[in-house]
Amino acid sequence: MSGAGIAFAGSKLDRADNVRSNPEQLAALQTWRARLLRLDGLTPLLTPEGGLEWGTLADAAPDSDLVFLGLDGDRGCFAEVPAPLGGSVAPPDPRVWQAMMVLDAADLATYGGARSLVDWHARHRFCARCGAPTLLAKGGWQRNCTNDACKAEHFPRVDPVTIMLVEHQDNLLLGRQPRFPAGNYSALAGFVEPGEAIEEAVAREVLEEAGVRVRDVRYVASQPWPFPSSLMIGCHAMADSADLTIDRTELEDARWFTRAEVAEAVAAADRGEAGQAFRAPTRTAVANHLLRWWLAQG
Amino acid sequence: MSGAGIAFAGSKLDRADNVRSNPEQLAALQTWRARLLRLDGLTPLLTPEGGLEWGTLADAAPDSDLVFLGLDGDRGCFAEVPAPLGGSVAPPDPRVWQAMMVLDAADLATYGGARSLVDWHARHRFCARCGAPTLLAKGGWQRNCTNDACKAEHFPRVDPVTIMLVEHQDNLLLGRQPRFPAGNYSALAGFVEPGEAIEEAVAREVLEEAGVRVRDVRYVASQPWPFPSSLMIGCHAMADSADLTIDRTELEDARWFTRAEVAEAVAAADRGEAGQAFRAPTRTAVANHLLRWWLAQG
Repeated sequence: MSGAGIAFAGSKLDRADNVRSNPEQLAALQTWRARLLRLDGLTPLLTPEGGLEWGTLADAAPDSDLVFLGLDGDRGCFAEVPAPLGGSVAPPDPRVWQAMMVLDAADLATYGGARSLVDWHARHRFCARCGAPTLLAKGGWQRNCTNDACKAEHFPRVDPVTIMLVEHQDNLLLGRQPRFPAGNYSALAGFVEPGEAIEEAVAREVLEEAGVRVRDVRYVASQPWPFPSSLMIGCHAMADSADLTIDRTELEDARWFTRAEVAEAVAAADRGEAGQAFRAPTRTAVANHLLRWWLAQG
Repeated sequence: MSGAGIAFAGSKLDRADNVRSNPEQLAALQTWRARLLRLDGLTPLLTPEGGLEWGTLADAAPDSDLVFLGLDGDRGCFAEVPAPLGGSVAPPDPRVWQAMMVLDAADLATYGGARSLVDWHARHRFCARCGAPTLLAKGGWQRNCTNDACKAEHFPRVDPVTIMLVEHQDNLLLGRQPRFPAGNYSALAGFVEPGEAIEEAVAREVLEEAGVRVRDVRYVASQPWPFPSSLMIGCHAMADSADLTIDRTELEDARWFTRAEVAEAVAAADRGEAGQAFRAPTRTAVANHLLRWWLAQG
């Protein structure tokens, strides 16, 4: 099991968590040498060379909330919390998909982690327990309720999601959601719920969405996915039967694909093209990594 | 990889997620035949035989919020959201530890999932985005903001936590937190943060807490842990060196234990006793499962 080649993993920043709870160290890092990740809301600004653009703290609004992303050598790296954001989750700006194509792995991971963190702050300005305003604490790794009768502490959220390849007689089960572009198929996926082990969540999701019972669930790889803050847990499972009962409220379609069809579609995706049987997810998705892992086992 | 024998996994209830978003089906299940999980706040009431006590909907307060746990055959199973709870997290009532010793695996899992869910409702009565009250929706698998200008949707939270055995020359690294009873040692652990893959979180935690660099991170097993709502992700990693630099703000101690010491301590824990070198975690903890897995590999 390896994170090599997983998009949004592999940031080179040192998270330096000891600094977060040390106000003197945090303040000492907020000098003219500090680096500010340049964002337009949640969208990264890029240099002409296609890297992340970093400014200085002078580029932040004077009264803005700053989160401490970590250390680059001895320089503190920060990001600015944007103005309150609408809704529960916003679809990413189209420029984000462009940035995913050009940023190198370490920059993409740094951006993803920063995006999840500032997005969480922008949508958590109030205490879920009592409704009072909350204030950023510990360099942005906590928010504290300002109501003295409550004082609840809140922490950035990470939502575990299972995403799984289901195999039967050397075929793979892939599905498409109604929102997918035409021809796209990918691995089935769903959030882990309270009271479930990873293996139970995989089995439940496949049964719910495709009516298939699975066994021998194996972990393959994981990925932080910052839309808004998922932990994708990639697995493989064997199906007991090829019979499908598709939940049409979740999936527009689900089908079995042969090893040859999967291999051709993954190769086509590398050229930015649709395969003959389906269009495979791009390399930034952990589903692409899972398909490559499966092809390599064959 | 298997969930067999993992405490808090293996509920026999059918989550029947299709029912949650169907108000007519939900209402049709709330008859005299429906089952209500009897809780005192977050603490389970037990039958004289040591099972979960189930009542009927008549046992719930008339104006209480009910969450739909799932189906037992064709009977809906529900739990009542307790009155608003204090703090961010409360230590479990001592009766909960007793219940963990007597409940069978399926009942313990049903209780754990129910506890996480009703605890989340009791601490999330307000919208984190705008501060307005929220209302329970979809059978308790969602809360909706009542502010028409906001309308944010909120979902039950599951926090992924890595917990890892670190190995060097057939010794295991275990640590103790200051809050542990005297003599107890367990696997190091820490929350997965935004922007991290599982493997990265394991490596960061071990480096932060013990100053040890690890490689070859492997997934072993997972466990839902309902205090309040963690997903424990159990891993194994190899250390590059036995030299320790312990973070004394996180750990009171960390030490290498031999295979013989671990085997003796795990056997002693089965008898409810401390081992000669240390006291091992009990069977309800995924750390106990990880230690058994490691001993079985040797």
